[in-house]
Amino acid sequence: MRHLLSIADLTRDDVERILETAEALQDVDEKLPALRGKLVLSLFFESSTRTSSSFELAAKRLSADVMSLKAAGSSVDKGESLKDTVLTLAQYDPQAIVVRHPQIGAPLLVARHSNAAVVNAGDGKHQHPTQALLDLFTMRQALGVLDGRHVAIVGDVLHSRVARSLIQALALVGANTTLVGPPTLLPRGIEAMGCETASEIGAIAAADVVYVLRMQRERMESAFVPSLREYAARWGVTPERVRPGQKVMHPGPINRGVEIDGRVADSTDSLILEQVRAGLAVRMAVLHDLLASDSPVRERAAVA
Amino acid sequence: MRHLLSIADLTRDDVERILETAEALQDVDEKLPALRGKLVLSLFFESSTRTSSSFELAAKRLSADVMSLKAAGSSVDKGESLKDTVLTLAQYDPQAIVVRHPQIGAPLLVARHSNAAVVNAGDGKHQHPTQALLDLFTMRQALGVLDGRHVAIVGDVLHSRVARSLIQALALVGANTTLVGPPTLLPRGIEAMGCETASEIGAIAAADVVYVLRMQRERMESAFVPSLREYAARWGVTPERVRPGQKVMHPGPINRGVEIDGRVADSTDSLILEQVRAGLAVRMAVLHDLLASDSPVRERAAVA
Amino acid sequence: MRHLLSIADLTRDDVERILETAEALQDVDEKLPALRGKLVLSLFFESSTRTSSSFELAAKRLSADVMSLKAAGSSVDKGESLKDTVLTLAQYDPQAIVVRHPQIGAPLLVARHSNAAVVNAGDGKHQHPTQALLDLFTMRQALGVLDGRHVAIVGDVLHSRVARSLIQALALVGANTTLVGPPTLLPRGIEAMGCETASEIGAIAAADVVYVLRMQRERMESAFVPSLREYAARWGVTPERVRPGQKVMHPGPINRGVEIDGRVADSTDSLILEQVRAGLAVRMAVLHDLLASDSPVRERAAVA
Repeated sequence: MRHLLSIADLTRDDVERILETAEALQDVDEKLPALRGKLVLSLFFESSTRTSSSFELAAKRLSADVMSLKAAGSSVDKGESLKDTVLTLAQYDPQAIVVRHPQIGAPLLVARHSNAAVVNAGDGKHQHPTQALLDLFTMRQALGVLDGRHVAIVGDVLHSRVARSLIQALALVGANTTLVGPPTLLPRGIEAMGCETASEIGAIAAADVVYVLRMQRERMESAFVPSLREYAARWGVTPERVRPGQKVMHPGPINRGVEIDGRVADSTDSLILEQVRAGLAVRMAVLHDLLASDSPVRERAAVA
Repeated sequence: MRHLLSIADLTRDDVERILETAEALQDVDEKLPALRGKLVLSLFFESSTRTSSSFELAAKRLSADVMSLKAAGSSVDKGESLKDTVLTLAQYDPQAIVVRHPQIGAPLLVARHSNAAVVNAGDGKHQHPTQALLDLFTMRQALGVLDGRHVAIVGDVLHSRVARSLIQALALVGANTTLVGPPTLLPRGIEAMGCETASEIGAIAAADVVYVLRMQRERMESAFVPSLREYAARWGVTPERVRPGQKVMHPGPINRGVEIDGRVADSTDSLILEQVRAGLAVRMAVLHDLLASDSPVRERAAVA
Repeated sequence: MRHLLSIADLTRDDVERILETAEALQDVDEKLPALRGKLVLSLFFESSTRTSSSFELAAKRLSADVMSLKAAGSSVDKGESLKDTVLTLAQYDPQAIVVRHPQIGAPLLVARHSNAAVVNAGDGKHQHPTQALLDLFTMRQALGVLDGRHVAIVGDVLHSRVARSLIQALALVGANTTLVGPPTLLPRGIEAMGCETASEIGAIAAADVVYVLRMQRERMESAFVPSLREYAARWGVTPERVRPGQKVMHPGPINRGVEIDGRVADSTDSLILEQVRAGLAVRMAVLHDLLASDSPVRERAAVA
């Protein structure tokens, strides 16, 4: 693996290897020396807490140097093109560039104009592959084998890079996916990606995992859905709509009382916080896979 | 000591131990390994230079990893509740969380929802305990024993978390406090905290230390005081109003010519810069006290 | 050398020594321990990607601790004077302070009020000495000896601290400089600095290096030049106006199609990316020269 731009680029073996590495790394308390002296550039052209801090911390735990650049206050303000920004930053010889950008394909452009391994941390409505990997990791920790499992993804699939990556990742490991939401928010022809669609919230009943997408307030303004209140009434994941043992996930941050009821988010079947924790392990694993020469299992033994 | 949320939670022994640790740490030039591999999360929901940089540097000097999150540009913008932010960040297993927040009690909420040791770096008008500790440290360096000493706190006590923490801290070490300022800016019934009040600036004459509070410009707009000029004339700490040998302190940043005359701030009796320096040592001591297993005195010997 | 405030303070020997150090450092892949335990404060009162990240990375590569403070969100917002900010930060005993400020002379003020070695990272329209040093470094890598070489600086010299530093630096190493641009943008009497001026773009033909200055959009609004389009037509550095082998430089970020044609910027004669790379090596060299006790050549051998 040279970059992580899209789940579509991964083989099932790639996924297995990354998840195993994440498992080996997840309980290591100490800093690992794996990426000592290596430079990881974190380049966020959209605001983010979760993802940027998760990547930065992952890099630091592997002893990498991290340089974080945000769009605001940078040359981007002065109208510099992404290509010129990347060509410039490439002069610092970073071993990896983690990039989030509102434009689809921006990470590919970064990969073309630098020698670094590039990790897509979200590009427009396209892909967010580390989110999908951490979701698989979390599901596997909770359910074991994912082959044949059934995941319902609920909500605004249309605008969601999280959904797009996750649908592909679930297909790769043999799980079945149903997309559930208002027809205005399900992309036409999405079934070609190997999933089913349903336009009643009742369709989540059959799923092992109910994966709830964030409802962006902006969608209301654009008339995709009539109001937050109506959305919550019709599509909100409430205690009445899930059954005990059915796992609930959400990429965060959650809107309590909109797409998910607070009682569901806080229940013992909720894996939401496990997802955050998995994010750190999986991002360490991805950076390790791209940059380190040694096996994390051997390193872990060395620490212990 | 499990957290540092309020001076009210500390015993005199706690204070003594922290100040002694700060003394042991203050002249160490080298980085100490005490917190190597530990993660300190710095979470500032209000802007700050002094306090946030002082904490970050303190953590780094003890070899901790530091992750800093500001409210702007974070999930907080997306309407996430403090509780959900904390639950999320707690997944990274930080050993300590330093938090500043405009709401009273926010640090307690952080403590409830994470396993980290929490340090209150200022919550609303409530508490700013490390400021009070560094103030004690500074006074003790200048005056020796504080028992029976007299401190006059001048200005806007009503809106000051600094004052609230300092009044308690001075009481704990046996010093006497007089609050001096316009009656509109002295909280009613504040004498119950064991201090006196005075409504003439002349009352500072008897004090060993004149502790000047910052006059927020916003107070003028809210009609607490008629104008900056009148405030300065009536309450400004000028060379005419202090006597040689009387120590002058201020939590910074100062408004020259408003609550304090520049000549007083720059005089040899001013301890204002000593306070900044003490801030670093005291915050190292607090983090050390909360997180380290070893004695700082022994460590210091190991470095030397 | 105690500070780096202006090229005017340097001897030719200083320049030679820094460039040689940069050469020794430029190919070191590993972190050097030279500045371990030292604190470099980065204090940017103007936004910047290139320069601030270059300095931060330079400091980290030498194992220094770096603390970065931006004007926004700092006490500066609360109206604190630069002097008080510096006096405050000086309490942390930084070994070096890197400062960018819109006011001419700000770095000198910083030097006066702290014990740190101060590096001017740009002050108003005055100086940007590390840019000039990295420009010399880049030219020397491309051309060898600079004595007797001819450099044409094209564009808005009037508002450019880059130009002011570079003119002095070129004079110091014996190169000849011609300033080329609209008379409204060439400072009156600038010839006293030992350079020539020309008011036709054709004057660049004789130069070994064409150094293109950034055209600030704000200049149009202030009526210094009629429009970007007219500026580009008359002064833009296009493929037709340069000859093969003539080197082209630019301090970045570039405005493609305004002061420089994209084909020129991307040509094999362009040294623009080399300048960015040189920036890292030269800033390491400057910090090393100011702070380290050991020779970088010996260190390098130790790493290898």
